[in-house]
Amino acid sequence: MDSSDSIAIIACGGRLALECIEEARSSGRLGGVIALEGESIPEVVALADHVLKWGQIGRLISALERTGAKKVLLIGSISRRPDFRTLVGDFETIRWLPRLLTTMAGGDDSVLRKVIGFFESGGYQVVSLADVAPGLLAAPGLHVGRKPSATEREDIETGFAALNAMAAFDVGQSLVIGQGRIAAVEAAEGTDAMLERVAQLRDARRVPWKPGTGVLIKAAKRQQDLRVDMPVIGPQTVEGCARAGLSGIAISAGSVVIASRSDCIKRARDAGLFIVSCDQAALGPDAPSGAIVPETP
Amino acid sequence: MDSSDSIAIIACGGRLALECIEEARSSGRLGGVIALEGESIPEVVALADHVLKWGQIGRLISALERTGAKKVLLIGSISRRPDFRTLVGDFETIRWLPRLLTTMAGGDDSVLRKVIGFFESGGYQVVSLADVAPGLLAAPGLHVGRKPSATEREDIETGFAALNAMAAFDVGQSLVIGQGRIAAVEAAEGTDAMLERVAQLRDARRVPWKPGTGVLIKAAKRQQDLRVDMPVIGPQTVEGCARAGLSGIAISAGSVVIASRSDCIKRARDAGLFIVSCDQAALGPDAPSGAIVPETP
Repeated sequence: MDSSDSIAIIACGGRLALECIEEARSSGRLGGVIALEGESIPEVVALADHVLKWGQIGRLISALERTGAKKVLLIGSISRRPDFRTLVGDFETIRWLPRLLTTMAGGDDSVLRKVIGFFESGGYQVVSLADVAPGLLAAPGLHVGRKPSATEREDIETGFAALNAMAAFDVGQSLVIGQGRIAAVEAAEGTDAMLERVAQLRDARRVPWKPGTGVLIKAAKRQQDLRVDMPVIGPQTVEGCARAGLSGIAISAGSVVIASRSDCIKRARDAGLFIVSCDQAALGPDAPSGAIVPETP
Repeated sequence: MDSSDSIAIIACGGRLALECIEEARSSGRLGGVIALEGESIPEVVALADHVLKWGQIGRLISALERTGAKKVLLIGSISRRPDFRTLVGDFETIRWLPRLLTTMAGGDDSVLRKVIGFFESGGYQVVSLADVAPGLLAAPGLHVGRKPSATEREDIETGFAALNAMAAFDVGQSLVIGQGRIAAVEAAEGTDAMLERVAQLRDARRVPWKPGTGVLIKAAKRQQDLRVDMPVIGPQTVEGCARAGLSGIAISAGSVVIASRSDCIKRARDAGLFIVSCDQAALGPDAPSGAIVPETP
């Protein structure tokens, strides 16, 4: 294998990291796996070449060097924001501290962009999940469930338009809309917490929809760097939508990943939810009728 | 008093209803007060001409007729959505039921617009708080606290622009922004619940601002009918902002009411928060430096 094509995967929380590792391995491009203690799932830790603790920046760099890879995929969730107090016990880290301190100043997206800069300044190319595992990105079409009704198609159009309008302000990765009304908009709380809020609002009759009403719309924000912050739905999202009494999920094809796809499909089927990938670019008043749900799924 | 100028106030929950009654009385235009059992505060119930239960639409119409007023102000909060099961024990209601059923179909704003239509079809003019008690609307300027810093002024500009962008989708009456990042957007949950969410996100370090960072931005939605749905901040809002560790509140002058104003000012001062009313129309890149906070407050 040409080392220039080899990919080192820094795998944090969630099963998606495992799926990426499997895809990279099956395409023969896996250079190595670095897991993060307390974040990576056991299956990832079990097959990792290196398992690091939070703050072991020095060891991270050495581990990367040992993989021989020049491309890096950062994948998986981080349950907490790195704390400077965890930067202990790793002498090598001190060498990287000044650059790291610069990296950690600023908002969430800004941090991620700076993390990319950190790796790039070390000669690495940060690649996206779409480069490593394009199969995980959903093509446009209906994945499970019935086709959205005319009302739901309108809601889906409105929902994507609203996310688009908010994207310029680096907010709104997802929202819940039903019967023409937006019930919740995601900001810093994350999709799961937003879905839980919708469930509570419905219990309290603050959102007076009949059960099986409302669609989760999810897309990438315009300023979102898909190399480090790919929007994802997974089994937990599907369960959240079911608890919130929604009728389905509409994601932007090409920029939202369905993690643990077969599990998602099964749970959605059991809960009577549809999952549809939409070609956001094809939405709008002049869009052909098949733009949201292609006539041949 | 000319009855055409006389105003009947249908007073629901909160102290703002009491303030409106006092203003209408002092201007000699108070035609009568109708309170709602279980919603109106005791002070309002005490001075009401009629106290109705939920669903007594027939009695509401009779009570309105007896005030002799042709103008109606609907003011105050409603803790729960009217339930058709409460439409009992009021024989007269049956007469109004068909029109009411039509009224209750649809989303929140739509309901309120239809409520207006309901009164108008009975020959009443629904007026706004701005007509009855213009003194409750805040003029542009700083009401309490220090002037917003340059960073905060930028955040306020961005916040209003984001609310504007969302307004077309009938969402986003308020948001919380700090250091250029929008942490929360209000939809169906209401401002108080959104502020509580920000407090929790900060406790969980999901919003990594220093204490005293972040501004609550509140404005009317574009499609909002100010006659029945005037955005309000009050002591509870101020307390919510304090708990969320914010630095201040920026409202749109002319479309957001400060209820219990002196109480708000006192609490904001105690909590070290600023409250500023902004001329939304004057915001933007070409705005003069005094546009957000007039140089002479």
